[in-house]
Amino acid sequence: MILALAGGVGGARLAQGLVRVLAPDELTIVVNVGDDFEHLGLTVCPDLDTVMYTLAGVQNPATGWGRADETWHFMQTLARIGGEIWFRLGDHDLAVHVERTRRLASGETLSTVTAALCASFGIRHPVLPATDQRLRTRVTTDAGELAFQDYFVRRRAEPAVRALHYDGADAAGPAPALAALIGTGRITGIVVCPSNPWLSIDPILAVAPIAAFVDSHAVPVVAVSPIVAGSAVKGPAAKIMRELGAGDNALGVVDHYATRVGAWVIDREDAALGEAIRSRGCRVAVTDTIMSTAERSRELAATALAMLRGTGAP
Amino acid sequence: MILALAGGVGGARLAQGLVRVLAPDELTIVVNVGDDFEHLGLTVCPDLDTVMYTLAGVQNPATGWGRADETWHFMQTLARIGGEIWFRLGDHDLAVHVERTRRLASGETLSTVTAALCASFGIRHPVLPATDQRLRTRVTTDAGELAFQDYFVRRRAEPAVRALHYDGADAAGPAPALAALIGTGRITGIVVCPSNPWLSIDPILAVAPIAAFVDSHAVPVVAVSPIVAGSAVKGPAAKIMRELGAGDNALGVVDHYATRVGAWVIDREDAALGEAIRSRGCRVAVTDTIMSTAERSRELAATALAMLRGTGAP
Repeated sequence: MILALAGGVGGARLAQGLVRVLAPDELTIVVNVGDDFEHLGLTVCPDLDTVMYTLAGVQNPATGWGRADETWHFMQTLARIGGEIWFRLGDHDLAVHVERTRRLASGETLSTVTAALCASFGIRHPVLPATDQRLRTRVTTDAGELAFQDYFVRRRAEPAVRALHYDGADAAGPAPALAALIGTGRITGIVVCPSNPWLSIDPILAVAPIAAFVDSHAVPVVAVSPIVAGSAVKGPAAKIMRELGAGDNALGVVDHYATRVGAWVIDREDAALGEAIRSRGCRVAVTDTIMSTAERSRELAATALAMLRGTGAP
Repeated sequence: MILALAGGVGGARLAQGLVRVLAPDELTIVVNVGDDFEHLGLTVCPDLDTVMYTLAGVQNPATGWGRADETWHFMQTLARIGGEIWFRLGDHDLAVHVERTRRLASGETLSTVTAALCASFGIRHPVLPATDQRLRTRVTTDAGELAFQDYFVRRRAEPAVRALHYDGADAAGPAPALAALIGTGRITGIVVCPSNPWLSIDPILAVAPIAAFVDSHAVPVVAVSPIVAGSAVKGPAAKIMRELGAGDNALGVVDHYATRVGAWVIDREDAALGEAIRSRGCRVAVTDTIMSTAERSRELAATALAMLRGTGAP
C-alpha cells in the first residue's frame, strides 16, 4: 500500500495520476485538513474537496478549486442580502458543505463523511483526512496571527509569513484507517505530493504518529518538488519559503523535509540542482513535473513510484 | 396601523395588495412561523420567505413558494451525494436560509434577521414573525403525529388531520415590535388574510397576547375567505376542514373564527352564503377574491380595508 500525502491542486493532480497506475488496494490518499474552517455555519474542507472533485473528474482546472460548470446563484443572492462573500461557494459545491456539516453534526466522523462523499462521486481509492480531530493551520504574519483562510483567501496570502502553527495537532491522531495501516505494517512507501510544504504537508506531519512513522524510515519516501525554477506552480509556496528564509528554489523544500525524504523528483528546469540534492544523500529523478494533462499526471506518478521502488535515477 | 395576519401564498398576495394602498407606517404584516423547521442544518421559514419574496417581486407565481428564475444545482448535487431532497431548496433561495441560520446562531432574533433580510430586498413595510420564540405546528393524523413539513411536504398533506397543536405556543410572546404596537394602542384594525385558518392563522393566534388582543374587540377584524366554492385556492384548507368536521364551504371558516371576525370578504361564487354569514352577526362583502394579478390583490386589499372602516357592504 502506497501512501500519498496531498494538499490541494498539486496534490490532487498527482493523486489523479497515482490512481491510474495503482489499484484501490494499493493506494491511500491522505489529505491535509489544516485548511478546513467553519464558514456561514458550514464546515468547509477545501483540500479534501479539491482531491475529491479532481479524482471524480468534476474539478475546475482553471481555478484549482471548486467544480467545473459551476453556477453562482447562491453567492449572488448572498451578496444581495449582505452575507459574507469573500469565500466563494458555488451552487453545486455548496451541497457537499451542507451535507458534510449535517453528517458531522449528527455525530459521524470526518473519515466516514469523506468516504461517503467520495463513494457518491464514484471514487474507488481510499481518501482519508489526515485526522478526524480538529486541526487548524494558523499563520503568524507581519499583520498579526490569522486563521488560515483569513490569511489565504480573505487577505490573498499577502501578509508576510513569520511562523505557522497547527492548532489541535497535539491532540490529533491519524484517521482510524490510516492508524490501522501504520499499525499493521501494510504501507510500503510514501509519496509526498507537490503541495505546499508549510501549508499542506506539514499540517499532515503535525499529527505525531504520522511524523513518527515517516521518521522511522520503515518505508521509502519520495517527494515531488512543488517549486519549479524558483516559483510555485500554483499558490504562495515560493513566497512563503522566502519569507521564512528557506531559500529561493527547490533546495529550500529539500532542506525543509531534510532526512524525511530519501528520493526527489524535480523538474527539468531545476536539473542543475540535482547534484546539490544528491550531495544531501538523496536520489533524484529529473522530469517534466507540470501536470497540464491527466496523462502528464500519470507519467509523473509512475516516475515517483519508480523512485520509491529504487528503479529510478540514482 | 393596520395589522395583517398572513401565512403563505394567499397571505403574501393580499399583503402585496395592502402595501399598494397603505404606507409603511400604516401596515404591519405578521407572519406565521408554525411552518418553520430545521432542515439540512438550516432554519427554513417558508411563510416569512413567501411573504418576503412576494413583496420583493421575486416570487415564483407558479409554485406559490420559492423564487422565480430559480436554479436547482445545489439540489442536483445533493441528490447525487445521497442527501435529503424531499424539501426542495433553490440556489438563490438557499442563501436566505444560510444567512438566516448564521445570524440566528450568532444570537440575533428572528425579528431582527427578518427585518434585515426584508430591507435587503427593498421591502419598506414591516414584516414580523408572529413570535421570536420557537413555535412549531404539529399535526395529529390518521398516520400518527407528524412535524408540520413531514405532513405538508414529505407526505403531501395526504394523511387525514385529526388535530393540530402548536408546540411552544404556551411560552411564546409576540415579536417585540408587535407587542409594542399592541401595548401602545396604535393598531386600528386587523386583516386576516386568505391563508389556511388551521395551518397559517391559528399558529399566530396561538400566541396568547395576540389572541387576547383580537378577542378584546378593541379593533375591528376583517377576514378574506380562503375557501371559494368549497375549495381552497391553493393548499389543503378545504380537505382539512372536512377532516375536522368543520363543514364543506366558506361557512366552515366563518364558524371557525366565530366572534373573532366581524366582517367577511367572500367570493362571488359564494354569494349565496352571504345571508348565513350575516345571520351570524357579521358584515359581508362579495367580490372577486382570486388574486391572479397584483392589481387584483390591490383591489381585494382595498375592499377588505373598506370593510374595516365600516364603509363596506352591510
